[in-house]
Amino acid sequence: MDSSQIRLFYRNATAEAIGEEHGITHDQLERIAAETVPMIRRVNEQRKAGETPYRDLPYQTHVVERIHDIVGEVHGRCKNLVVLGIGGSALGNIALQTALNPFMYNLDDKQRRGPRLFVLDNIDPEQFGSFLRWIRNELDQTIFNVISKSGRTIETAAQFGIVCDMLIKELGQHSLRDQLVATTDPKEGILREIADRLNLRSLDVPDGVGGRFSVLSAVGLFSAAMCGINVDRLLAGAQDMDTRVKREDFYENPAAVNAALNYHFWNHGKRTSVMMPYSYHLKDLADWYRQLWAESLGKARDSLNREVHVGPTPIRALGATDQHSQIQLYREGPNDKLFTFLQVTVFEQDIPIKVPPDLPTELAYLTDRNLGELLNSEKRATEFALVSSRRPCLTVVFPRVDAYAVGQFIYLFEVTTSLVGALLNINAYDQPAVELGKEATFALLGKPGKDYAELDREIRGLTELDEHFLV
Amino acid sequence: MDSSQIRLFYRNATAEAIGEEHGITHDQLERIAAETVPMIRRVNEQRKAGETPYRDLPYQTHVVERIHDIVGEVHGRCKNLVVLGIGGSALGNIALQTALNPFMYNLDDKQRRGPRLFVLDNIDPEQFGSFLRWIRNELDQTIFNVISKSGRTIETAAQFGIVCDMLIKELGQHSLRDQLVATTDPKEGILREIADRLNLRSLDVPDGVGGRFSVLSAVGLFSAAMCGINVDRLLAGAQDMDTRVKREDFYENPAAVNAALNYHFWNHGKRTSVMMPYSYHLKDLADWYRQLWAESLGKARDSLNREVHVGPTPIRALGATDQHSQIQLYREGPNDKLFTFLQVTVFEQDIPIKVPPDLPTELAYLTDRNLGELLNSEKRATEFALVSSRRPCLTVVFPRVDAYAVGQFIYLFEVTTSLVGALLNINAYDQPAVELGKEATFALLGKPGKDYAELDREIRGLTELDEHFLV
Repeated sequence: MDSSQIRLFYRNATAEAIGEEHGITHDQLERIAAETVPMIRRVNEQRKAGETPYRDLPYQTHVVERIHDIVGEVHGRCKNLVVLGIGGSALGNIALQTALNPFMYNLDDKQRRGPRLFVLDNIDPEQFGSFLRWIRNELDQTIFNVISKSGRTIETAAQFGIVCDMLIKELGQHSLRDQLVATTDPKEGILREIADRLNLRSLDVPDGVGGRFSVLSAVGLFSAAMCGINVDRLLAGAQDMDTRVKREDFYENPAAVNAALNYHFWNHGKRTSVMMPYSYHLKDLADWYRQLWAESLGKARDSLNREVHVGPTPIRALGATDQHSQIQLYREGPNDKLFTFLQVTVFEQDIPIKVPPDLPTELAYLTDRNLGELLNSEKRATEFALVSSRRPCLTVVFPRVDAYAVGQFIYLFEVTTSLVGALLNINAYDQPAVELGKEATFALLGKPGKDYAELDREIRGLTELDEHFLV
Repeated sequence: MDSSQIRLFYRNATAEAIGEEHGITHDQLERIAAETVPMIRRVNEQRKAGETPYRDLPYQTHVVERIHDIVGEVHGRCKNLVVLGIGGSALGNIALQTALNPFMYNLDDKQRRGPRLFVLDNIDPEQFGSFLRWIRNELDQTIFNVISKSGRTIETAAQFGIVCDMLIKELGQHSLRDQLVATTDPKEGILREIADRLNLRSLDVPDGVGGRFSVLSAVGLFSAAMCGINVDRLLAGAQDMDTRVKREDFYENPAAVNAALNYHFWNHGKRTSVMMPYSYHLKDLADWYRQLWAESLGKARDSLNREVHVGPTPIRALGATDQHSQIQLYREGPNDKLFTFLQVTVFEQDIPIKVPPDLPTELAYLTDRNLGELLNSEKRATEFALVSSRRPCLTVVFPRVDAYAVGQFIYLFEVTTSLVGALLNINAYDQPAVELGKEATFALLGKPGKDYAELDREIRGLTELDEHFLV
C-alpha cells in the first residue's frame, strides 16, 4: 500500500466490535460483497458507455491548461476573487479552499499566495449588502467568477445582474470584459450567450456532469488554481483513486467496501450518516459530501418506478468541537446513525501544548504533548465511546491533508455514491424534486407564462401567516 | 400582538395542510395540549424552586453592569477579541455575532464598532497555528476571553496554556493581567484559581446553568458587548418571551405549542429536526440550537430509569443555499423530518435586483424585485414544495433581526427544550454520555490516576488501524 493513499478502516462497524444487533457480521459482509461486485461492473460499464462523464474529469489536461492560461492573464491584478454560484457551483470551491489553504488566508496577507476568496452562495440582502459595501473599494482589483450551467439559476442570475450593474456604474462597460470570468455551458444557455456577446473569458461546465459531481471540472478548479492550490496534484490524486475504485475485487476497492457498508447500514435502520472530520481543513468536504449524498441518494422511486423513498440523511459534524454538542445524542439517542470519521495521520504543523509555570499542576500531563496528538486522541476516544454504545463507525484515514489526498477523497466518495445508487437501484444523477420549488418561486415573482397565476394563489393560501395558526 | 414579537406559525404541520398520515389533526393537538399544560406547570414550579436558574438570566442586571465595566476598561486598546471556549462556551458567542453584526465585520474596519472577534472552538494544530502566526503581530492589542466553568475542559486548557506562554514570551508576565479575561466559576476550579492568583479580570459562569443554556449569562454576553451588540435589548427580548412562555394557556404559549408539536412529531416517526433559517444572520442560531437540542434531549433513560434512547437529531440547514443541496432528499427521501423555518419579515437593508441592459430578456421578470423578496419567495416556495410532499413544516417569524428578536428566540427555544424534556420524561439538563470520551482521552494521554493504563490498552486495541480492516 502506497503511503500517500487514503484508506478506509471499518473494523468498528463490524459485529466483532459492536455486536451482532448493530454491527455487520462476516457473513453479512460476504453476502453484500457478492451483491456489490455486479454493481462495480455495472458502474464501470456505464462509465465506458459515456453515461457518467464525471469519471473522466481527472484526465482532462486541456481544461487545466485553459485554467492556467486564464489564471496567468488575471492573477497579477486580482486581489479578490468572488465566486457567484450556489450548490454544486459553490460547495466544491469552498471545500477545496478550506482544505488546502490556511485558516487565516483571507485576513493574513502573508499566508496568501493568491487573491482573497469569497464564495457567495446565497442571496441574503444583508449579507450581500455588507459584502458589496466592502468590495466597492477594491472593485478594480476584483475578479468575479460566475458559475451556472444554464445561467438560469435564479440566485446566481440575481447576484450576477447586481454585480454587472455595479461594475458598469463604477468602472464602465469595458470592465465586464476585464473582470468577469464565466463558467458555463460550452454551447448554449443565457450565460453562454452573455459571455459570447461580451467576449468574456470563459470556462466550460462539462456536458452530462451534474453540479454535485463537478468539483474536479473548471467549476471547482479555477478558483482553486487562482488561490495557489495545486490542481494537477488534485487530479493526480483522483486518478490514483480511480485505479482503486474500478477494481472488481471487492476487498481491494475502497469505494465498493464503503458503498456496501453504507447500503447495509441504511437497510438496517441507520437512517442518518454522520461525517465527522477531526481536522479543520476537512470540515467543508463534509459539507460537499452532504450535497453529493442527499441529492444523489434521496429518491422517491427506484428504476422500476416503485415508490421507495430512500436516502440516508447526511450530517456534517466536526471533531473535537461537536463532542461538546452532539456526542450525548450520538451515544444515548436512537441507534440510527452510521459514523464516518476523517482522521489525519500527520499534521503539517503541530503545536506543543504549554502549561504555564506557577499554575495548578493538575494539567501537567498535557506538557510536551502536541495539539495534533490531543486531537487524534480525542478522535480515538470518541470512537471508543461510540463503540461502547454499539454505534457503527468507519474512518477514512488521510496520511496528510494535501491536494493529492483531497483528490482521492473526492473521487472515492463520488464513486461510492454511484455504487450506493446502483445498490439502491435508483438514479443517482437526477434531482426531480427540486423543480417544484423553482416553479413556485417563478410563480411568486410573477414570471410570465405557464399557469403561474393559479400556482401563485395556491402558494399564498398555504404560506400566508394566518392568525389562526400563529402563536 | 406586539409587532416586535417573534411568532410561531404551524399551519403547515397540520393534517389540514399535509393530510392525516403525516400531519397533526385537531384532535391530536387538543390531546397533546392537555398533556402539555401540566408540563408547563411543572417547568414553572421547577423554576420557582430554583432548579432551572437559566430562567432568571435575563434579569441579572448586575452581570450586565459588570460586563460594561470590563468593556469600558479594555475596549479602547482592543483590536481583536479572541474567545477560547468550546461547546456552550462558543456556540452562543458565534450565534450572537453572526446574528447581530455585519457579514464583513472582521474584514471591513468601517463596518465594525468593536474589535474583530475570533471564537476558536477547536484544537486543530494547523488552524490554531495559522491563527497564532497572524495574531502575534497584534498581540498587544488583543484580549483573550477564556471561558470554562471548571478550567478542566481539555481543549480550552490546552489553548489557554499556549496563549499564556506566548503572552509571557512576547510581552512579559504582566501582560496576562492586562490581556486575559476569565469567565469561570465564581468560587472554585482551576481557572478560578488561576484568575485569582494572577489577579485577572473575571466574570462568572452562573451556578447550575449548563453550557448550552448559558448564552444569556456572561459566557455569551461579554464578547457580544465588546463587539457593540446591545445586550440590554437582548435580555429585554428574553424577558418579553418569558412573559409568554410561562402562560398556562396552551395556545397563548409559543414554547408550549412548539414543544407539543416537536414531541408529537418525534412520536410519529419524524426522527430528525431540520432548522432552516432563510437569513444569513440567523444561520448560527441553528447551530446553537443543534447543541441545545441534542445534548438536552438525546437521552438513554427516562426518569424511571427505563431504557428509552430518545432524541430527535437536529440538523442545521440554510435557505436558499441548501435548496441546491438538501431539498431533493427532504422532499423525496423518507418522510422522517420535521422542518422549522426561520423567516424574516423586514430586512434592514435590501438590494434591488438588476438585469443589465442588452442582455437576454428571459430574466426581465426579476427587474425591480429585491433580493429580500426573492429570498422570502424562495422560502415560501420551498415550504410549498415540502407541503406538496406531505412533510410537516413550522416557521418562526422574525419581524426583523435585531437583539430584541434574537433574545426572544433564544429564550423560546430554551424553554421549548425544557418542555420537550418534561414531555419525554427525561432529564434535559445533564449529559452523562460525554464522560466516557473524556476519560478515554485522559487515558490515551497518560494522565496519572484511576485505571487509565487498562483503559488505554482497550482503546488502542479498538482503534489501532489493523490491516485486516483497512481497504
